[in-house]
Amino acid sequence: MNDDLLIMIPGPTGLPTEVREALARPQIGHRTPAFADLIADCTAGLQYVFRTRKDVLILTSSGTGGMEAAITNFLSPGDPVLAVSVGNFGERLGRIAEAFGAEVTWVTSEWGQPADVEAVRAALAGGGHKALLFTQNETSTSITNPVEELAGLAQAAGALTIVDAVSGMGGVPVLTDDWGLDVVVAGSQKTLMLPPGLAFVSVSERGWQANATATMPRFYFDLRKAQASLEKGQTPYTPNTSLIVALQASLNLIRAEGIENVWARHAECAQFIREGVAKLGLRPFGDARYASNVVTAFYPPEGVDPKAIISHLRDRHNILITGAQGAYRGKFLRIGHLGTVDRGQCARVLAALADALAAAA
Amino acid sequence: MNDDLLIMIPGPTGLPTEVREALARPQIGHRTPAFADLIADCTAGLQYVFRTRKDVLILTSSGTGGMEAAITNFLSPGDPVLAVSVGNFGERLGRIAEAFGAEVTWVTSEWGQPADVEAVRAALAGGGHKALLFTQNETSTSITNPVEELAGLAQAAGALTIVDAVSGMGGVPVLTDDWGLDVVVAGSQKTLMLPPGLAFVSVSERGWQANATATMPRFYFDLRKAQASLEKGQTPYTPNTSLIVALQASLNLIRAEGIENVWARHAECAQFIREGVAKLGLRPFGDARYASNVVTAFYPPEGVDPKAIISHLRDRHNILITGAQGAYRGKFLRIGHLGTVDRGQCARVLAALADALAAAA
Repeated sequence: MNDDLLIMIPGPTGLPTEVREALARPQIGHRTPAFADLIADCTAGLQYVFRTRKDVLILTSSGTGGMEAAITNFLSPGDPVLAVSVGNFGERLGRIAEAFGAEVTWVTSEWGQPADVEAVRAALAGGGHKALLFTQNETSTSITNPVEELAGLAQAAGALTIVDAVSGMGGVPVLTDDWGLDVVVAGSQKTLMLPPGLAFVSVSERGWQANATATMPRFYFDLRKAQASLEKGQTPYTPNTSLIVALQASLNLIRAEGIENVWARHAECAQFIREGVAKLGLRPFGDARYASNVVTAFYPPEGVDPKAIISHLRDRHNILITGAQGAYRGKFLRIGHLGTVDRGQCARVLAALADALAAAA
Repeated sequence: MNDDLLIMIPGPTGLPTEVREALARPQIGHRTPAFADLIADCTAGLQYVFRTRKDVLILTSSGTGGMEAAITNFLSPGDPVLAVSVGNFGERLGRIAEAFGAEVTWVTSEWGQPADVEAVRAALAGGGHKALLFTQNETSTSITNPVEELAGLAQAAGALTIVDAVSGMGGVPVLTDDWGLDVVVAGSQKTLMLPPGLAFVSVSERGWQANATATMPRFYFDLRKAQASLEKGQTPYTPNTSLIVALQASLNLIRAEGIENVWARHAECAQFIREGVAKLGLRPFGDARYASNVVTAFYPPEGVDPKAIISHLRDRHNILITGAQGAYRGKFLRIGHLGTVDRGQCARVLAALADALAAAA
């Protein structure tokens, strides 16, 4: 536990002082007028971040719990759905659908590539898909998918759009209403600058219509119950009150900065990191045209173990970066640049990276 | 948001300074050696509180999420189970089982009464029940069930014992191993003195054997995945890191005091409250022989609206107590006395209650 630790992984992110202070406040009751005001204000702030006038519900779970809610509230066992996988997290949404009995067809891209739009178009043209599942921003490969284009294909085919925006929401534009996204999931520990422990799910009218006939079993993650409770200023089950108090603090920071400025700051920092990595002679992982603005993946120099670089940054510079997951474990490195990120943090991690490369040479 | 607010509801409870300080610490990484040490120490601390050498898994959700895990990991659709309901929360465990397709038979007590042991014995004698579901401590009615006796009946009938101990764990003795409890659920926001947001589930060998063939769908709450991750010092999905840091702080407080002393403090405070309420001429709700040591329910004086008393305590004394739920809404009052509770807090709430009665007279 060191106060100077600079967390540059793709979530959890560092916490602003305002958030840390909010977390330390005394406990509040969750069935009180004060809590009703708090959750109403947080919901409005989330609608601002999601760019939606639709319902946004707050769940006490990590992002994966929100993803489960996004599946089980809108689908029935046996429903044919199309899952787009471009990495570890894209795969998760489809795996949840499978676990609850959906008939999942996969359109899988090689890691480092975005969604194969033509393959999605062709698969949807076959007809009958109840939903299209995909990741907005794939942290495992540092790729941002063409969300608007994919949503357009789903709408044309009459399929629901269910989007995992856990890692990118707030850092990379997600225009929920303009793009007609039916169900969008975000999490607290990314651009929202909070500890993990809350998930947020937006639901369109089309989503609620699907919910009316969806029969997958659900209880804790029942969004209709969450919506009914929200109208009374409550949650169906005891929420993480402290984290919701801190959510208000973080949403206030985002509203004060302006969401467009938050997006611009992420874009600027991402470019700074990408250029810095290139200047160090390191090769990026993934298709540069779809490079994420919240995480950058790159190969270590030939013959250098990524673990040695991660350890050097952690032990000598007190900076946390991370490696690759799944089948690519040990193959490349990832730097997260989201949440409180600024040029100073980016310069610090690049300087440390240069030192690690010198040490490894 | 007032620093002097005294929370005397049956959870969330007030937070010790050590917990508030822990919550305010900078963020940590959740796939690091430091986190592995942290979760190992917390698991050992939870085993101490649960009085078990079995697995105890940490979930990022509120207690109800832990209850869902306790059902879906051990049962299959169509399984006949016996659910004992003595109030709002006893009913919840059975409702979850129903939502996921179990064939639930109910043994329901009138509110204020404990489990009907003879009816449970008779129902189990019919045979074939896969599990017995019940609440250890029913906060909605301030009743503690005869847990050991119920567990013995389940064992004799070859049924799993699935216990919701969310509100009582730590405050009222639960001897998980000695009593042969298979699956026990607890939550962070009660006697563990943390904000809501973590659930804890212990699993016996018999529980794991049942898990091997249980087919209810699960993903976020998959306990087998949680156990496999824990062996690597991790969790399957991003955990609420801040709350786990705070959990270590609260477990350290409990270990320093000694669990037997924590139980004794709760028993002493409960008696102080019960006697104080009686001295004020108020009639207790519920069977006194099974009165809970973490919450006390009592009727207001004839003709006095419980809401007026709750408001008086909140607005004039900055103390939060609560009313009754469900069908008993508006009928009685409840004072929670758990977590950081001491005689000073109890004296303060009783003095405020006396003032409220004088004001209402």
